[in-house]
Amino acid sequence: MKKLILNLCLLAGMLPSPLHAQEAIMPGMRDIKSPVVSEAGSVQFWLNAPYAKKVYITGNITRFNKGDFDPSEQQAKGLVPMKNDGGLWEVRLDSLAPDLYTYKFVVDGIEVLDPLNSHVLRDVALVSNMVLVPGEESKDFVAAGVPRGSVHTSWYRSGFRDTDRRLSIYLPAGYDSSDRYYPVLYLLHGMGGDETAWLDQGRAAEILDNLIARGEAEPMIVVMPNGNMALDAAPGHGPLGLDQPNFYLPHTMDGVFETYFPEIVNYVDSTFRTIPAKESRAVAGLSMGGFHSLYLSANYPGLFNYVGLFSPAVDPTQFNKNGLPEIYRDRRVKIKDQFRQGVRLYYLAIGEDDFLYEDNKKFRAELDADSIPYIYKESKFGHEWTNWRRYLADYLPRLFR
Amino acid sequence: MKKLILNLCLLAGMLPSPLHAQEAIMPGMRDIKSPVVSEAGSVQFWLNAPYAKKVYITGNITRFNKGDFDPSEQQAKGLVPMKNDGGLWEVRLDSLAPDLYTYKFVVDGIEVLDPLNSHVLRDVALVSNMVLVPGEESKDFVAAGVPRGSVHTSWYRSGFRDTDRRLSIYLPAGYDSSDRYYPVLYLLHGMGGDETAWLDQGRAAEILDNLIARGEAEPMIVVMPNGNMALDAAPGHGPLGLDQPNFYLPHTMDGVFETYFPEIVNYVDSTFRTIPAKESRAVAGLSMGGFHSLYLSANYPGLFNYVGLFSPAVDPTQFNKNGLPEIYRDRRVKIKDQFRQGVRLYYLAIGEDDFLYEDNKKFRAELDADSIPYIYKESKFGHEWTNWRRYLADYLPRLFR
Repeated sequence: MKKLILNLCLLAGMLPSPLHAQEAIMPGMRDIKSPVVSEAGSVQFWLNAPYAKKVYITGNITRFNKGDFDPSEQQAKGLVPMKNDGGLWEVRLDSLAPDLYTYKFVVDGIEVLDPLNSHVLRDVALVSNMVLVPGEESKDFVAAGVPRGSVHTSWYRSGFRDTDRRLSIYLPAGYDSSDRYYPVLYLLHGMGGDETAWLDQGRAAEILDNLIARGEAEPMIVVMPNGNMALDAAPGHGPLGLDQPNFYLPHTMDGVFETYFPEIVNYVDSTFRTIPAKESRAVAGLSMGGFHSLYLSANYPGLFNYVGLFSPAVDPTQFNKNGLPEIYRDRRVKIKDQFRQGVRLYYLAIGEDDFLYEDNKKFRAELDADSIPYIYKESKFGHEWTNWRRYLADYLPRLFR
Repeated sequence: MKKLILNLCLLAGMLPSPLHAQEAIMPGMRDIKSPVVSEAGSVQFWLNAPYAKKVYITGNITRFNKGDFDPSEQQAKGLVPMKNDGGLWEVRLDSLAPDLYTYKFVVDGIEVLDPLNSHVLRDVALVSNMVLVPGEESKDFVAAGVPRGSVHTSWYRSGFRDTDRRLSIYLPAGYDSSDRYYPVLYLLHGMGGDETAWLDQGRAAEILDNLIARGEAEPMIVVMPNGNMALDAAPGHGPLGLDQPNFYLPHTMDGVFETYFPEIVNYVDSTFRTIPAKESRAVAGLSMGGFHSLYLSANYPGLFNYVGLFSPAVDPTQFNKNGLPEIYRDRRVKIKDQFRQGVRLYYLAIGEDDFLYEDNKKFRAELDADSIPYIYKESKFGHEWTNWRRYLADYLPRLFR
């Protein structure tokens, strides 16, 4: 057996060091496993750290833990202490709702990934582990036994700086084997995200595969562009190569993305079998992507029949201290005109703990004052993927039917 | 500024804990940066670990370091010690050849990613940081200022276990805007890898974009299937969801992949604009993928005109202790027949330190005894991506012309 494992390691072509070979290459063969998920919504985590003095678990999962821990300053900061049993550290988080969670360990002040968990997620510059607590509310984050759509990463030519920009495109199952034309959803990420965010954190492809397979959503093309015009692509894929991207971004909510947006629509309509008409076009986005969706749909009233604002930023002044670009001016006038030209769905959702809640309340008051009809969903929790995945699943069935 | 950063963090929709917000969310804004690459092939690494007693750097980069360190047992194990300056740990690795390297820190026995480097790589179950030392030999690992191909992840139906299996497909720049038909390279990963390996570790899309743009390789479609029949997809993407995949794999070199391979060719030829003929079809693979390439081309002599074996496994007995499946029998007879039917290129490459070197020597002797013509390249180093990226770049210009 040992020889077979060694051969396996060698044939895998990795073995960066003998340490790796012993530590993490074959997680399934260790005596401990981590994480261990139970049906009852508990997750147990283990870490072998014999020299550590203090180990915590952190990540969004600790906030949702309802387990029986003493309140402490650490927990208030999202740090839940782990118990030390002879160098093996352990913690169980309890009563977790079905969801996709992120976590990491903090070992004597240093953040450490779980060496026994091969599922990792990059979000902006942070890398975390993922764990899924299964159940009704998270069942669509995994696609099993349903036809699978394909995901393309392509490049379109942008007039801004005359560069190629990367985008992700979901094509529904059956696209390649039919001549059918499809409606299109433009799905936009938050500030700091990129063209991979809705696929990785958002599990958008799996959610779409499941909803479409059950007949709950129309088969559609979903386009996920990069909404930060200062970067051409997600880290590592663009002309920057492996230089560190500058996440302090000058071109996110300054009107540039919206100004150049029609070139994305042109690229998509000329490359894929789309129905190139307002009736068959939707836009939605989270946070900054909600902001983009708001202003794109208001400034191009002929483009979208469906608009989804998920925990949207709504205040354009903050990133435009020296005056608003034209695209952010006269919002009320533009939205009124947008609705005169016809909007089938204007969907707004936010969590009760969201730091943008008050801004959104004002925005809704503005819509109400102008008698703009919209659907409003208020959820628990704050500005986070737990909400955005659910908003997406709630929004998709309302499109194109 | 502080407020802007906070807003940026919040709008990014991440903030799993206040710790994250302080630690790693804005790497570009810290006083220290890591890694810092110099033109002369030195890379400096920094880690803030005030409570640590001993910090090493590890990864394939330490093996290539020619810097002035004392030899020690740790270094022999691929661990290079870092210097402690008041809790800030530092090391400079010198005289590194231009290449893509992996690394991690080891803090008091625990492996830790560089919190200041957003470039991470999963290889089997291991996650490492990446750093690129620029120069002539690594220039094609970044695509800048050249037309970009697109990458598709699609699913084909397999008769094995009647499941959908994921594959990656590179389509060259211009595919979408032309009616042209293209030759196809099937590019296979090593044991433990998956359909993402050649794209992530191998930088295959960037290498192809660059070679095609310079006219050094023909525009071609490149198909990267998952060669482990026990798994449907790379971790996190298949019906397993976020359960831990079992990397101890029962279906890798037991004839199953080769038996079902024609269904991949059928899927590709019926889905993309391929030239569906032997003259326009190549296969190549590393390690286990070289093994697959060897036996696929020998068992389907009408399929491939070009065969590339990169550090190939060549001994089928090891994984078939209870007797060889038919597909691995009579190799010499089959290869002779393969060449009678015509092979334009049989390309074999291996590193002088590769643990498969002796096996390959025997295989070459077998080919020589049978007067089989082939191109043989012997490089420095062992069983590793440093070689495989270079073999690919050497192999591609020989195809389809």
